Amino acid sequence: MVYVLLFFIFGLYVLDYHYKDNRLNQAAQEGIRGSIDEKYVMVTFQAGIEYWKSGLKGFEDAAEALNVSVEYRGATQYDLHEQITVLEQIIARKPAGIAISAINPQELSATINKAVDAGIPVVLFDSGAATSKAYSFLATDNYVAGATAARKMASLVGENGGVAVMTQPNQMNHQERTRGFLETMDREFPRVKVEAVQDGKYDSMSSRQATYELMSRYPNLKGIFATQANQGVGVAEAIQNLQLDGKVKIISFDTDKATLDLVKQGSIAATMGQGTWKMGYWSLQFLFHVKHGLVAPGSGTEANMTALPPFVDTGITVVTQGNVDQFYAK
Amino acid sequence: MVYVLLFFIFGLYVLDYHYKDNRLNQAAQEGIRGSIDEKYVMVTFQAGIEYWKSGLKGFEDAAEALNVSVEYRGATQYDLHEQITVLEQIIARKPAGIAISAINPQELSATINKAVDAGIPVVLFDSGAATSKAYSFLATDNYVAGATAARKMASLVGENGGVAVMTQPNQMNHQERTRGFLETMDREFPRVKVEAVQDGKYDSMSSRQATYELMSRYPNLKGIFATQANQGVGVAEAIQNLQLDGKVKIISFDTDKATLDLVKQGSIAATMGQGTWKMGYWSLQFLFHVKHGLVAPGSGTEANMTALPPFVDTGITVVTQGNVDQFYAK
Repeated sequence: MVYVLLFFIFGLYVLDYHYKDNRLNQAAQEGIRGSIDEKYVMVTFQAGIEYWKSGLKGFEDAAEALNVSVEYRGATQYDLHEQITVLEQIIARKPAGIAISAINPQELSATINKAVDAGIPVVLFDSGAATSKAYSFLATDNYVAGATAARKMASLVGENGGVAVMTQPNQMNHQERTRGFLETMDREFPRVKVEAVQDGKYDSMSSRQATYELMSRYPNLKGIFATQANQGVGVAEAIQNLQLDGKVKIISFDTDKATLDLVKQGSIAATMGQGTWKMGYWSLQFLFHVKHGLVAPGSGTEANMTALPPFVDTGITVVTQGNVDQFYAK
Repeated sequence: MVYVLLFFIFGLYVLDYHYKDNRLNQAAQEGIRGSIDEKYVMVTFQAGIEYWKSGLKGFEDAAEALNVSVEYRGATQYDLHEQITVLEQIIARKPAGIAISAINPQELSATINKAVDAGIPVVLFDSGAATSKAYSFLATDNYVAGATAARKMASLVGENGGVAVMTQPNQMNHQERTRGFLETMDREFPRVKVEAVQDGKYDSMSSRQATYELMSRYPNLKGIFATQANQGVGVAEAIQNLQLDGKVKIISFDTDKATLDLVKQGSIAATMGQGTWKMGYWSLQFLFHVKHGLVAPGSGTEANMTALPPFVDTGITVVTQGNVDQFYAK
């Protein structure tokens, strides 16, 4: 009986030791993780559109890896005041962090600063607000994207001949894409001439019309770079109608379904895919790092731009017939 | 007896259940962590200089957080062939990842590509190699650093008067710092005139001499921006010797001890602190993410620039008398 009891106690001891030892190893190896009641919020505008899906997936994937929670919110419309109201509501609930794509580069700053001043980490993704106190901005470097498009276009037209740009002249990101395209052509491909920079007015119908005019003025045009997806669709329709499909090389922007279908068919030779998953993934990582104080020694919340890298270029992937399939939303 | 045995078995069962349950929770909450036998290597040149310490600290801090190991290697001299040899040796041992500051923007690419082709993740930090297959480049955006210096200088001189730049005209990063300074002054501060851009030849003696010449040509000069630390020291010495200390505002670059001492004394009004800790920290995070496949869906090792953000601006902190103490190496 005594032996049985001793055996029993020994059995308990061994198991308990094993359990403690295991916990000790865990402490040394626990890695980077949060708790499930930490909630990080992603805020957009026109919240229902396809464009945000991949960024949200990145945000969710990082949250899963780090064992924290996420919520997706946004203005339903393209409406500044609606986005401000949504942001105010979120701040009131004191989440662990906020990643926001700003509908306007100036008008969101006061509300963003209110969040930062209340101790809530904020990063910007996709569309920035340079004058705000947000810790970081994660987005496509649009100048580099334009340069990448120029190199692809040069290659498509054999580094020789006339090309054109279909853009939106009043919006910063489109100006940068155009500037990157023009300056890279000028510097690296002296035999490619950019004949015209056309206003596609952000929609496919205007871009179709503008393409007809362009082709009648420059009938030997070998390529058109559209800096925006709707414009790319309009250019492709015009080129198809003119039966110049394949002869005039089209480069477009983004990876919405309509554009991908035209890439798959071969009407659009290439489209510039933005690193939206990376915007979401690294936004959450950055917020988590500020929340948990995993930042440069000495960088307080006051010196907010020093805690994290102030800018991350999430890059461009050139999407062609060869790799288009992996870009359809799953 | 039977009861004792039953009790014993029940005891074992409860403990074991408790243990399993705990493991289950761990699995759900395990966070991001590696194993201690994963070794990540940081590679520099002139490996013993003070400049690398903070970047290595960031690399080590990330490794500790992620439960992986690090090693620091580098060419002892400013020697391309030595760095190539060191890199070749490291590749042969197949580490989990390599973060390298390239001594030369072209000549390292073949060896870097060899590592990437062998399945070893490589990122560049501080000094890049644009044509290599490295996954990312984490560094100061030198144009932005120059723009930041311009805004600080404008503020120091009351947004009015003549200033000058002491730089190294043949090196890319210094050209970018100068361009950022000039263009920002031009665009944002029309009443500040940059009178001269002088060659400081990368050392304090030449910069001292160049400052004497500058001050005799432009006796009303209100500020000098030195794009490099040794040059900043030379400028400060000249201004002290001319007894113009405090009258001519000096902005320098980097946070070596000599520069920090001059900031503390008030001879140098501000110096541009690079985000070296962040370069190291996020280099290790990035390598870990590639190694563990925590990257955008569909981005294989072939499409290496798409797995991670291709560029991270690690930012600038303006170091003044007010915050200088936290920048001394601990």
